[in-house]
Amino acid sequence: MGKKKDAKKFKKNKDAKKSDLSSLREELRVGEGFDLAAVDTRSTPGFSGDKQLAAQLMTDTADELDDLQERLYANGRDGVGPSVLLIVQGMDTAGKGGIMRHVIGSVDPQGVELTAFKAPTKEELAHPFLWRIRRALPQPGYIGVFDRSQYEDVLIVRVHDLVPPSTWTRRYGQINAFEAGVVERGTAVIKVMLHISADEQKSRLQERLDRPDKHWKYNPGDVDERGYWDAYQESYQAALDRTSTADAPWYVVPADRKWYARLAVHQLLLDHLRDLDLQWPAATFDVDAEKARLAES
Amino acid sequence: MGKKKDAKKFKKNKDAKKSDLSSLREELRVGEGFDLAAVDTRSTPGFSGDKQLAAQLMTDTADELDDLQERLYANGRDGVGPSVLLIVQGMDTAGKGGIMRHVIGSVDPQGVELTAFKAPTKEELAHPFLWRIRRALPQPGYIGVFDRSQYEDVLIVRVHDLVPPSTWTRRYGQINAFEAGVVERGTAVIKVMLHISADEQKSRLQERLDRPDKHWKYNPGDVDERGYWDAYQESYQAALDRTSTADAPWYVVPADRKWYARLAVHQLLLDHLRDLDLQWPAATFDVDAEKARLAES
Repeated sequence: MGKKKDAKKFKKNKDAKKSDLSSLREELRVGEGFDLAAVDTRSTPGFSGDKQLAAQLMTDTADELDDLQERLYANGRDGVGPSVLLIVQGMDTAGKGGIMRHVIGSVDPQGVELTAFKAPTKEELAHPFLWRIRRALPQPGYIGVFDRSQYEDVLIVRVHDLVPPSTWTRRYGQINAFEAGVVERGTAVIKVMLHISADEQKSRLQERLDRPDKHWKYNPGDVDERGYWDAYQESYQAALDRTSTADAPWYVVPADRKWYARLAVHQLLLDHLRDLDLQWPAATFDVDAEKARLAES
Repeated sequence: MGKKKDAKKFKKNKDAKKSDLSSLREELRVGEGFDLAAVDTRSTPGFSGDKQLAAQLMTDTADELDDLQERLYANGRDGVGPSVLLIVQGMDTAGKGGIMRHVIGSVDPQGVELTAFKAPTKEELAHPFLWRIRRALPQPGYIGVFDRSQYEDVLIVRVHDLVPPSTWTRRYGQINAFEAGVVERGTAVIKVMLHISADEQKSRLQERLDRPDKHWKYNPGDVDERGYWDAYQESYQAALDRTSTADAPWYVVPADRKWYARLAVHQLLLDHLRDLDLQWPAATFDVDAEKARLAES
């Protein structure tokens, strides 16, 4: 009997351990001496379970995420209060769209402000690079989501010499100062790099070519860009080194396994919302008096 | 044996009949001689099943909705192509937020442009009433969703004499001309009124007062507005009479049962997307040549 119980307990402990995501955030956080090239893009830091358990854990916390998002929204009703900004970067096919669809898609759309930054327009180019970013910051109560961001201005811009080195060199500090102000004004900033390998990208592009329903997602320029893979990695490493601050750290999420990347971003969002420790706003009216008025209406 | 088979067949036919939503759209459509006061707000036009079956049917067509939305998005990639505009109106507590959360929330957020129209700002008031509406129209490939809309300018505005009668009287025609242009430019317009009874509204407001986690949703002004219930119904009737056109008809959805309202809007969206009969865009590049280039990259 004792043995059976022990076995059960062991199994339970093992499952509990597999379901424990409490170290994920710290494991993904970019700190001093971080080396992008050393990250195994197929690894699953902070999680020892499989795809099925990952999906289960996301389902298990869906209601909590929902509740926390609604509290955030409720607290922003008067135009003051905290907000959250999730920035998602990554090479082509890294899975940014999947994060938007499956992680952000699980949140009430009324509380989300999603911005996909494309190549800057003429109007945007006529302004400082942070101008369009500033306009897209989330209002109090909202979860802002950036699909690409100000970081393109030190990534693609650096790789392709779109501005002189003296300009992009200055931008790291400008980004840090900008983000410090954003955090100061009450926005929790979560910066995520979805990190895939060059081989994984190749197979994802291959799939887009193999499936006629994916042709529209394929752009011949994507193959050209593969020629700059190392320069991109170098630019990412520089951005991570220079802009992973205490207030607005980077999280590098290994993303060859899509299910892990989704779990990780879901968990990062959940962790940051939990940190806000939001209560429901107190009534700004006399509840009993309103009940009486309503009864008579 | 024959009897048992017949019974099974009967059950199957009955279930199939219950699952048949093909008449829903026509039954909800506002045509000649429509009488809002005659609508039973607890009825479920075009659907004879229950809450559970309604949820099942929404789940059954979730993948199709997803697929159709992605085709719409794919077709808009070059800045041309059709779009969809869903306008949702209704009295306070009619369930607009629930539609946004549960119906629109099931669609990929990357393909949705949601706008909640509040009381107009000073800037908006300085422009013609359609100015802010025009700016929020969906781009090609997108599903635009309006939580309230241009119709507030012939509803609350009319009820509270916010502009002279000669002004709001003119607006019905202006809205029709505007919407005709929107449809002409390739946008399918779906106008939904969520229709609840005054008693149902009372019980929903009561719930907001009873639950501290709902207090933030309660506004004492909502009780004052109940004093204008009949004037609102009259204004809705006038709007339905004058703006349910062949190109942009109104659908009045009985909404005392939230599950039915959600099924109905889901189905209306699905029906209109099906009508577009969208194919995946053909490749604009030489697929085989790209496969060769990719292989070498």
